[in-house]
Amino acid sequence: MDDRHQVWNDLAAQIAVDSIRCTTAAGSGHPTSSMSCAHLLAVLFAEHFRTDLTDPKSAANDRFVLSKGHAAPALYAVMKAIGAIDDDTLLSLRTMGSPIQGHPVPVPELPLIDVASGSLGQGLAAALGMAFAMRLDGAPARAWVLLGDSEMAEGSVWEAMEAAAFHEVGNLVAILDLNRLGQRGPTMHGWRADVFVRRAQAYGWQGLEIDGHDVGAIDAAYSEATSTDRPTLIVARTEKGHGVSFLANQPGWHGKPVPAEREGEAIEELGGIRSIIVQPPKPDPFLPAAPPDASSAPAPAYPDGIATRMAFGETLAWLAGRRPDLVVLDGEVGNSTYTEAFEAVARERFFEMYISEQCMMGAATGLQALGKVAFAATFGAFLTRAMDQIRMAAISRANLRLCGSHAGVSIGEDGPSQMALEDIAALRAIDGSTVLYPADGPATVRLVEAMCDQPGISYLRTTRESTATLYGPDEDFPIGGSKTLRGSDTDRATVVGAGITVHEGLKAADALATHGIAVRVIDAYSVKPIDASALRRALEETGLIVVVEDHRIEGGLGDSVLDALAASGPLSGRIVKLAVSRMPGSGTPAELRAWAGIDAAAIEAAVMQALG
Amino acid sequence: MDDRHQVWNDLAAQIAVDSIRCTTAAGSGHPTSSMSCAHLLAVLFAEHFRTDLTDPKSAANDRFVLSKGHAAPALYAVMKAIGAIDDDTLLSLRTMGSPIQGHPVPVPELPLIDVASGSLGQGLAAALGMAFAMRLDGAPARAWVLLGDSEMAEGSVWEAMEAAAFHEVGNLVAILDLNRLGQRGPTMHGWRADVFVRRAQAYGWQGLEIDGHDVGAIDAAYSEATSTDRPTLIVARTEKGHGVSFLANQPGWHGKPVPAEREGEAIEELGGIRSIIVQPPKPDPFLPAAPPDASSAPAPAYPDGIATRMAFGETLAWLAGRRPDLVVLDGEVGNSTYTEAFEAVARERFFEMYISEQCMMGAATGLQALGKVAFAATFGAFLTRAMDQIRMAAISRANLRLCGSHAGVSIGEDGPSQMALEDIAALRAIDGSTVLYPADGPATVRLVEAMCDQPGISYLRTTRESTATLYGPDEDFPIGGSKTLRGSDTDRATVVGAGITVHEGLKAADALATHGIAVRVIDAYSVKPIDASALRRALEETGLIVVVEDHRIEGGLGDSVLDALAASGPLSGRIVKLAVSRMPGSGTPAELRAWAGIDAAAIEAAVMQALG
Repeated sequence: MDDRHQVWNDLAAQIAVDSIRCTTAAGSGHPTSSMSCAHLLAVLFAEHFRTDLTDPKSAANDRFVLSKGHAAPALYAVMKAIGAIDDDTLLSLRTMGSPIQGHPVPVPELPLIDVASGSLGQGLAAALGMAFAMRLDGAPARAWVLLGDSEMAEGSVWEAMEAAAFHEVGNLVAILDLNRLGQRGPTMHGWRADVFVRRAQAYGWQGLEIDGHDVGAIDAAYSEATSTDRPTLIVARTEKGHGVSFLANQPGWHGKPVPAEREGEAIEELGGIRSIIVQPPKPDPFLPAAPPDASSAPAPAYPDGIATRMAFGETLAWLAGRRPDLVVLDGEVGNSTYTEAFEAVARERFFEMYISEQCMMGAATGLQALGKVAFAATFGAFLTRAMDQIRMAAISRANLRLCGSHAGVSIGEDGPSQMALEDIAALRAIDGSTVLYPADGPATVRLVEAMCDQPGISYLRTTRESTATLYGPDEDFPIGGSKTLRGSDTDRATVVGAGITVHEGLKAADALATHGIAVRVIDAYSVKPIDASALRRALEETGLIVVVEDHRIEGGLGDSVLDALAASGPLSGRIVKLAVSRMPGSGTPAELRAWAGIDAAAIEAAVMQALG
Repeated sequence: MDDRHQVWNDLAAQIAVDSIRCTTAAGSGHPTSSMSCAHLLAVLFAEHFRTDLTDPKSAANDRFVLSKGHAAPALYAVMKAIGAIDDDTLLSLRTMGSPIQGHPVPVPELPLIDVASGSLGQGLAAALGMAFAMRLDGAPARAWVLLGDSEMAEGSVWEAMEAAAFHEVGNLVAILDLNRLGQRGPTMHGWRADVFVRRAQAYGWQGLEIDGHDVGAIDAAYSEATSTDRPTLIVARTEKGHGVSFLANQPGWHGKPVPAEREGEAIEELGGIRSIIVQPPKPDPFLPAAPPDASSAPAPAYPDGIATRMAFGETLAWLAGRRPDLVVLDGEVGNSTYTEAFEAVARERFFEMYISEQCMMGAATGLQALGKVAFAATFGAFLTRAMDQIRMAAISRANLRLCGSHAGVSIGEDGPSQMALEDIAALRAIDGSTVLYPADGPATVRLVEAMCDQPGISYLRTTRESTATLYGPDEDFPIGGSKTLRGSDTDRATVVGAGITVHEGLKAADALATHGIAVRVIDAYSVKPIDASALRRALEETGLIVVVEDHRIEGGLGDSVLDALAASGPLSGRIVKLAVSRMPGSGTPAELRAWAGIDAAAIEAAVMQALG
């Protein structure tokens, strides 16, 4: 046997032992799922994974995604083995404040984690996004991802399989830890590696089958995977709990630590505690190309009205010339979201993801992890398809820019399946998110521009129909601000709208003015964070707030207004929410807004009724 | 040529013509995507689809799902051809109040639509659920589904492919309308039918390739599909806009009606307007088996405390003996959600869906469409994976019972990827939904029982840890109600909690009582609909409401309380929301509740601070 084999086997045993030690110390966690991939990780990080540990963010580095996030102990054991964390940190697993959590979360003090995992089926798309970024940069780097067999039931994995082959991504290697046992018992296909090899081939990948505890076979497979121009799936037959006789391939051990009284026995069978330190190979030096000079083209101007979805696309196209780090992904609706305007000027930075929103979101997360300013767009209704990916992106501390078009009943005839009606509720609830909803072209331009520098998950909601221009081209739209479009000292009510309902609010205010009722109109283009002080002032000065939105009544603008008012002190006054509270059908936009009670007439009636 | 072939070809031409007519009348819609499947539908409904039109809900009937929902005009044309709607109704397409909307929505006056479609990639799982129901009933019926080629990029399709093969569902036929053109241009694989045939085979299906405009070939394929015990995918090469030379296989016609001035030319090329009426074959008579006698076993009782997730599973097991229509699906976490208790007593009515939440939800929707009382369970965090399916289930007017376990930071060490923190926000926003969050075992028993008869989407949120029993076994928990657990005439504040935070609220009230501060404690187990009158009374009588929840601060219990109070009249008083507003990590449940500011100490402090 090769000398290196001995090192790799020892390292694998160390990873297994350390996985046991830290989970037993924590009293919870997944040692057996970590042990099945110990050899796979040992050979990868000792021999094939190229990284400069002194410069973890270098574009020359390979990247790794632990898609089976519950095997986090094995990854932390690798971190110890490469000298990135000490043994005390390893043994702090799952304790309050430790950087090494139950599932991987990127934190500044840890290498090898660029995206969070723990919700299964998401790692391959993230790695695909990383591979996209490397190719865009011309970097000779590679994205590696370790998959579990249970997660192969997730369709999101197959979306990414399809996309990687279609986009001819050669710098992507997926390793499938086929340990046969899921959370409850046997997986669907057990150790039938041929099932996955055949499917990989049917998707256009290179597919290899190996014994996942044979370091020589692993080494050879990694070499083969890195010398093809196709993405490779290595299906590795492994044992859950490998190396300890009372754990290996035994049911009933999923997610269970070894009890303290059996820890010694298990560690002894693995050859005891080791402190091997290995150095992953360094990548070849690589200098990214200098960015081109920024374009000085002026921002799009919309003196005459436009659909905000179109302004979104045109603004991206404008920004393409100013921000070489900007990339855009779309779910095959670029002629509806208008990302096609960006594609037309920056084809190489546009990713057509076809109708696979989960893969789109995962790839966007991977792209931003490598420094790209990634926008992902589709119908707002279909963004909900990727809610779990968005949730995980927030845990990844990702900076992700989303656009959902076709907001609300205002899309009209296509009917409810195409209407975004729950999107604000979903996006508001994401940690650290920003929710923006412009009412016209100039607001869209400035908000899209601001999103490029906004940390966290930001979401822009756009409207299908053309809307009149309300603002001048130099108007500022700070995130967290609002615009008061009508207002006086004698206002008896305030109408708060966003997007399409701002226009309805203005019409209502005009109509009420003819009855001698002065009404304030606020454009809450920043739904989260919302302009609490303007709202508080409005409540105190007018005593009545009518919030009107083209969204479900739960969780949207109305709830954002109520939340801000409640948080800013005691409440005194009336707050009325107008929103969609029944199931719409087809109709014209105007018919549907009337039906929902969110048009100018409904606002007028609500104000009159509340004023008595 | 067979005489029948002439009829089928004429019927196909009629379907194409009527698809053109109704979309031109509407001024929007998808004629060309309807024309590509005209022959496929003609042969299906004239020859192979067995249904008794006079008894559309009969268990003997085949079922059809139009997964490519934008081809709705073709389906409406079929309805006309079988005499279910008249020509005037056909021409009312997409108008306000018409039963025939832009995309299919089940309404009582229409046959052939059991589930809504229009969000792509969802039909196969729904058809799978129908096939499950037929098998369970012993019905000799079959589920048919028409897929579009663009939607094959959706992972949800492949989840259902996998599940159908794994569960050996022989009564499922999927027809893939391979028309080569998506919304924006060519699909990934164009007319390469072999790609999909090979994949179908790699997933364990029978795969057939045909010319989708050759009625003889279609007929033969349908016969072959119905004489195997494996699910079959028929890949039919077709032309978008087939039969009209200026439309056929031309780019730029997706989702565009034929202009009125060219309508005559198009119709003429198809042979003019026809009024063929066909009668689908009737199914053989079938009498479902009589249900067994209901068990008289008593409901589970929990005098000593239990985790609500376990009470959920045990209640399902109890109900299994009383409700033969009850079925349960799980995403391979039945030993965490405790649906395994149901599986143990009713294995044939338990569906192990492995880790494919989208397929689980689609199958549940299909099962309920055939009259089953379907519960679907997984971690609350992972239910978000199926948000689009849940949204579409609401449009389907589905009665679906969901359970999300592992609510909030209270799960502890596993960390944020496993914590349901946005689930209430997402589920509250669903049209007609019910959101329930029990604090103890007895409440869980009664709420699960109530869910069986609750229309629409109902959601039960359960807690990982054991919680003390608060209620007696005979306590009633009406949906829309609440429980006041502490209260007096001298209350100076009200704490509103649900689930785990009810217990924290009680502790806080006890602590405040020692300072002489009487505090009301309300268990808002029904988060939606919420008990507005109890809340209004609490605000009026105590002037201060502190809402505390183990959920993100946006869209959850706090927003539900604010919404109810705002809707019930003018506000006067203070409402404080305590909820999770930062990103948690690992820790013990108690540490994390303290960190989030939602434990008894935080409630106590919030009350003290607000009272000054």
